[in-house]
Amino acid sequence: MSIRPIRVLLAPSGFKESLGVSDVIDEMAKGVAAAAPDAEILRAPMVDGGEGFTETLVELTGGSMRPVTVTGPVGAPVEAFVGFLGGLDRRTAVIEMAAAAGLRLVPRDLRDPGATTSFGVGELIRAALDLGAERILIGCGDSGINDAGAGMAQALGVRLLDAEGRQIGRGGAELARLARVDLSGRDPRLDGVTIDVAVNWHNVLLGERGVARVFGPQKGATPAQVEELAAALETFASVVRRDLGVEFDGMPGAGASGGLGAGLHALIGATLRPRWDVVMAYIDLDQSLAMADLVITAEGSLDGQTPFGKAPAEIARRAKRWNLPVIALAGTVGQGAASTLSVGVDAYFSILTRPCSMDEAVADARRLVREATEQAVRLFALGRRLDARGRVAA
Amino acid sequence: MSIRPIRVLLAPSGFKESLGVSDVIDEMAKGVAAAAPDAEILRAPMVDGGEGFTETLVELTGGSMRPVTVTGPVGAPVEAFVGFLGGLDRRTAVIEMAAAAGLRLVPRDLRDPGATTSFGVGELIRAALDLGAERILIGCGDSGINDAGAGMAQALGVRLLDAEGRQIGRGGAELARLARVDLSGRDPRLDGVTIDVAVNWHNVLLGERGVARVFGPQKGATPAQVEELAAALETFASVVRRDLGVEFDGMPGAGASGGLGAGLHALIGATLRPRWDVVMAYIDLDQSLAMADLVITAEGSLDGQTPFGKAPAEIARRAKRWNLPVIALAGTVGQGAASTLSVGVDAYFSILTRPCSMDEAVADARRLVREATEQAVRLFALGRRLDARGRVAA
Repeated sequence: MSIRPIRVLLAPSGFKESLGVSDVIDEMAKGVAAAAPDAEILRAPMVDGGEGFTETLVELTGGSMRPVTVTGPVGAPVEAFVGFLGGLDRRTAVIEMAAAAGLRLVPRDLRDPGATTSFGVGELIRAALDLGAERILIGCGDSGINDAGAGMAQALGVRLLDAEGRQIGRGGAELARLARVDLSGRDPRLDGVTIDVAVNWHNVLLGERGVARVFGPQKGATPAQVEELAAALETFASVVRRDLGVEFDGMPGAGASGGLGAGLHALIGATLRPRWDVVMAYIDLDQSLAMADLVITAEGSLDGQTPFGKAPAEIARRAKRWNLPVIALAGTVGQGAASTLSVGVDAYFSILTRPCSMDEAVADARRLVREATEQAVRLFALGRRLDARGRVAA
Repeated sequence: MSIRPIRVLLAPSGFKESLGVSDVIDEMAKGVAAAAPDAEILRAPMVDGGEGFTETLVELTGGSMRPVTVTGPVGAPVEAFVGFLGGLDRRTAVIEMAAAAGLRLVPRDLRDPGATTSFGVGELIRAALDLGAERILIGCGDSGINDAGAGMAQALGVRLLDAEGRQIGRGGAELARLARVDLSGRDPRLDGVTIDVAVNWHNVLLGERGVARVFGPQKGATPAQVEELAAALETFASVVRRDLGVEFDGMPGAGASGGLGAGLHALIGATLRPRWDVVMAYIDLDQSLAMADLVITAEGSLDGQTPFGKAPAEIARRAKRWNLPVIALAGTVGQGAASTLSVGVDAYFSILTRPCSMDEAVADARRLVREATEQAVRLFALGRRLDARGRVAA
């Protein structure tokens, strides 16, 4: 019985604040090659809507990047970018909100989601329109804001007024003063474009599982601020319900990026889409799955949250439709990681090799990803060879 | 094609200063059962001659332990023990030198291999004789001394004299004053027993790779002390050569436990044996290897030293005679770990799951060993199932 070389589909996400998804894939590919030199490698960069979204889609389609300076989340200008896809989709602009209002752009001592703004995201949309976009694809994720896209909408001419008829200021806390929404001044070009937003379908705007309570703390909000922000979002929701007839309660993805999903949908006319559906349209995932013998995914952390829209769970669910084996690698295997076994992950390992700090692990991430992949493929191939020899099967 | 349950041979060593070998095996067994509930488990506790040697052999044979108070390595008394094997070998005593002169018994502020003594090892041998031993099995490893067994021999009546004909004092540094060896007062019962010593065959007494230079620093010697101790061992070797006709130069295992191997051989008439040969006589390793489908070994650290007599390399070499797959787990996968691939290890993983300190890893060792074993077996079984389905084999 002879064996043909295995086909390995590499489908990791990036490792936040450490390695971008294409670097992760490159290192994994080296690891596969070290373990199985004749293996065929298929690539599926599992970018969520956050950092790396634009670059990855542009790379996958042979598109181009345009630098754009915008207002950052704390008011200072930041160097951001708009991408354009290549080929037939070259009129499609790609924006990642994190480039204009990401948490990484908020200095640690200024982390206050009551004050940070999505204004720069609106400026990126305006730049895309200026550059002739006919469709705009917006990625959500890694945000440092909680303003429900209010700043974004204001940058595009939407008027958000207080009880005295004056525009409210920037930042999530200002939404508490919102009394009326006026779309009359909105950039008219928005009516002529299609806007799709890649969101985590599990993120909702309001209530106990709403964005302020779930993500506020990691953006720098105190417990008291979290409650203020949650209440401000309720005010925003009720004004929008009354003036525009849009209901956010329970809307999947409305809570994405500090409520930017809600603002893009209600104030700009965008359509929210599950982020993996958006991304997978560009990575030919089904074709890769049809060919692959083994899927290896990876993420910075594998834990009880993973089944809720994270890359390893998403790829595992899809791989299981093809009955494919799925290995997950992670920087940290945390509490609840075993829950990934029920959504299609077959085995998981940390890439770590010795007691170390997070900083040391981050500094060594390339080597760790490469070597862990090599050992995982070695072990997989081991079980595979064993049966091929007929030693165990009876 | 049906598949019978796999048989997994668990052959770890203990994790130094963390988990004893039987605990490691228990946790690994739980991990195997979690991944493959119907797997058959075979056990081979790979105790080297160090800590756990006596307890493991006593357990394997259904023997008994006897408490014995002896002189510790820094002079204060310590509670040690002599084991006796069970069954037909019940006249065989088992001693581990670490129980009387181990590094763990030397307080950190007293770590000075110029001063520490093996005297208590001699007392354990005397106790074994008092208890009627006909054979004595001595394990070397984890020592805190560098006195070539001088103290051990003195405890049994051997006279080690200086140029003035007075007994030299205790500790490795005193060997520099040795001028003559006098065996006339040696306990006569030693002539009637067989003494076998389990040593690391790679440990030599003298020269650049000699025990003072390789292990002196980790026992607390400064660089200057290391040279003094190496010179003292040369003096010891030349006196023994002249008075007893024994040549240590190049003798395998003579350097074991700070030269205790040399002293046991030359001054007491013991036979040095490769430690794994001694241990494997009691764990039926060849029978287990003949039955097993998969071998999982483990050790605290996997690195470039592993091929030189450490448990994972030893078990891997033997498993490869049966063409068995071997997985190695380790607390730390260090520099040079890939060298284990050339001695029969097929894949290796750290048990760690997140950035942490060594103390945290040690505190969590049981869970980490268990979960890493589970995931390794899951991954192995994955490759195995794949071929059983005929998906990949062509």
